[in-house]
Parts: sequence; C-alpha cells; structure tokens
Amino acid sequence: MHTLYSMQESGNCYKLRLAMAQLGVPFRIIDMDTRKGDTRSEEFLNINPNGKVPILVLEDGRVLSESNATLFYLAHGSALLPDDTFGQADALRWMFFEQYSHEPYIAVARSRLHLLARREENKDRIGEWHERGHAALKVMDRHLGERDFFTGARYSIADIALYAYTHVAAEGDFDLRPYGHINAWLARIAAQPGHVDIAWRP
Amino acid sequence: MHTLYSMQESGNCYKLRLAMAQLGVPFRIIDMDTRKGDTRSEEFLNINPNGKVPILVLEDGRVLSESNATLFYLAHGSALLPDDTFGQADALRWMFFEQYSHEPYIAVARSRLHLLARREENKDRIGEWHERGHAALKVMDRHLGERDFFTGARYSIADIALYAYTHVAAEGDFDLRPYGHINAWLARIAAQPGHVDIAWRP
Repeated sequence: MHTLYSMQESGNCYKLRLAMAQLGVPFRIIDMDTRKGDTRSEEFLNINPNGKVPILVLEDGRVLSESNATLFYLAHGSALLPDDTFGQADALRWMFFEQYSHEPYIAVARSRLHLLARREENKDRIGEWHERGHAALKVMDRHLGERDFFTGARYSIADIALYAYTHVAAEGDFDLRPYGHINAWLARIAAQPGHVDIAWRP
Repeated sequence: MHTLYSMQESGNCYKLRLAMAQLGVPFRIIDMDTRKGDTRSEEFLNINPNGKVPILVLEDGRVLSESNATLFYLAHGSALLPDDTFGQADALRWMFFEQYSHEPYIAVARSRLHLLARREENKDRIGEWHERGHAALKVMDRHLGERDFFTGARYSIADIALYAYTHVAAEGDFDLRPYGHINAWLARIAAQPGHVDIAWRP
C-alpha cells in the first residue's frame, strides 16, 4: 500500500486523495503539520529535501514529490490522463499554469487569511494576491466557455489540479460569482463518479 | 516547421530553443516583447489566453504553452525524457519545483534587477527573492551531491528546465560560488553535445 504524507487542509494534498479515491488506489495517511515543523525534520528532509507535502511513498519505497507530478504518475494509463503525447502535454500545461499563475495567489490568500488567520501582517500583499488570482480565474473562465473540462471533453488530472484550490477560493476572499463557466465546471467536477470532498480520508 | 513565439532574454524561451537544437527539430522564431505589450494583443490572447511566451505552434496548427509542458511534448520518445512512467514523473517533479520554488525568485530577481533595471522600486522584495532563491539552490546542491543529473545518470529536460535560469542567476545578484555541486553540473550541461547558449537562434 502507498503512504501519503499529507496535511488535511492542503489543496495540494487533497489532489492526491481525490485522484486515488477515484482510481481505487489504496493508501494510508501520515498526517503532517507544517506549522509544527514536521516537514523540516532531518528525517523528513531525507525523504523530501524541499520540505513540503504531499509526498507519496510507493509500496516499493520509491518517493514522489510535487503534487502535480505525482498526479501524472498515478493517472498514467487511466481515463484521468489522455493517452497521446499532445493530450498529456496539454494536461500538464494547465497543471503548470496552476502552480505558477493560480496557487501562489489563490492558495496563498486562503492559507494566510483563513487557515493561519494572519490578515493584519499580510495587508500589503492582499491586493496583489487578488489581482493576480482574478487574472488566473479569468483565463480559466474564458477557456471553460468553450469546453466542459480543461483538456476538452473528458475529466482529467488537469481538472483535479485546478479544482483543489478553486473550490475553496472564497476562503481567501475571492468572489467567484462573476465566473459563470467556472461555477458550472465546479458543479461538474463535484458530480464525477467517486468524487470525495477535502475532508475525506481513507 | 514549428513556430516559436519567443523573447530572446527569457530563460523559459531558451529552454525550448536549447531542446529543439539538441533534438534536431527545425523551427522559426517570432520575436515578442512583453514590455511593448506584444503578448497582451487580442490576436496573441487568442493563441494563449494567459498572455505569456514561450508559445510553440506546431506545424499542424496545434498550440502548446507553458515552457515545461512544451519540453515534455518535444522530448517524449527521445533520450531527453525517461521512457518509464516513474522516470517521467521524477523529471516532472523537478520541473514543477523549478516553476514553483525557483523561477519566481531567481528569474524574477534577474528580470527586475538586470533586464528591467528596476532596483529601487523593488528594494523591499529583494530580500525575499534571495532568501527563497538560495533555499532552492540548497535543495539542488544537496540533490546533485549524489548524482550527475537531476533524474540520475542521464541528462534530461529536468536539467534543461533548471539550467535556464540557474546559469544566469548572477544577473539577479545570486552568488553561486558556495554551490560546488551546482557549478560542476552547470559545466556538465554546457558540455552536452549540441548545447547552444541563450543568445543562439536558428
């Protein structure tokens, strides 16, 4: 059985719980709390020198890090990843978009304002988070105006990657009401067979 | 022939020029200047709604964006990408690390301090860029202490992705002298067959 080093509130960790639930991959969880320094211990740094979760340790002992690279590994050969090279690159395109243009603003705003409740000390950053986060949401909304899922007609790990923090964006004070296509897409994702919410654990 | 929308100084664009040179893929360049708004025109936004370069338009008209996703497409089936799923995920792991933990500090410092020469208006951010950038460099140096290339014994697109901005990090005031393993790796990359430097064009 695989072992997931995970923080329950983390959207990056949720991506892997959701994908493994839908793929029927059994796994156990080791809970980590980055706020208590769990990911900076020498023991953990030997597993991931970058000191972040999620980490997936495969049954054979090999280690995967970076949530979206791990999604690629888990979904390869399944219906959650296109089987042609262009389709895989197109899914990865949205996953790189998520990590570069979306997560640093939408997830970080949620973390600082909601999970850590440090609004006052971040008051000079909130404007930039919202400006850049809304820019990412506009790109998503425009793209979803012409297709049901990010890579086209079929649900994939690109949708899982972008769903993780978009569906809780309100916790970072993002108002999603103007984004009609995103809202319809969020409902489609939540209606997928085997969908589990962020609180779910195996 | 493929068409690369590219900015010559951009490390993200250099990744694709370097990979296509080494793979023997012919392409032509359309020069873009993000500072003149070239990537915000409606014409360009129809190609890439995220308004960034590089963009690769394939001979058949299909469009790839995000430099590291495009590297994956170009290298698939070649010696520049492992052919097993775990190896591919391991290469992607370092490419996500590059976009999340490296580029936003090391490339951004180079852009603001060197290319745009806006030191004064960014003086409050420089400390954070250097702190986070050096954290990424330490992770790389530790990893390279035990292997020649990021995914192990063989040069891959993970090395190309990380080389692009590491080899010009000094332009963002990063002192690379303490990183012995990184320096040896930079020299190994520059000695690869078919290597071209950032100024090269087809």
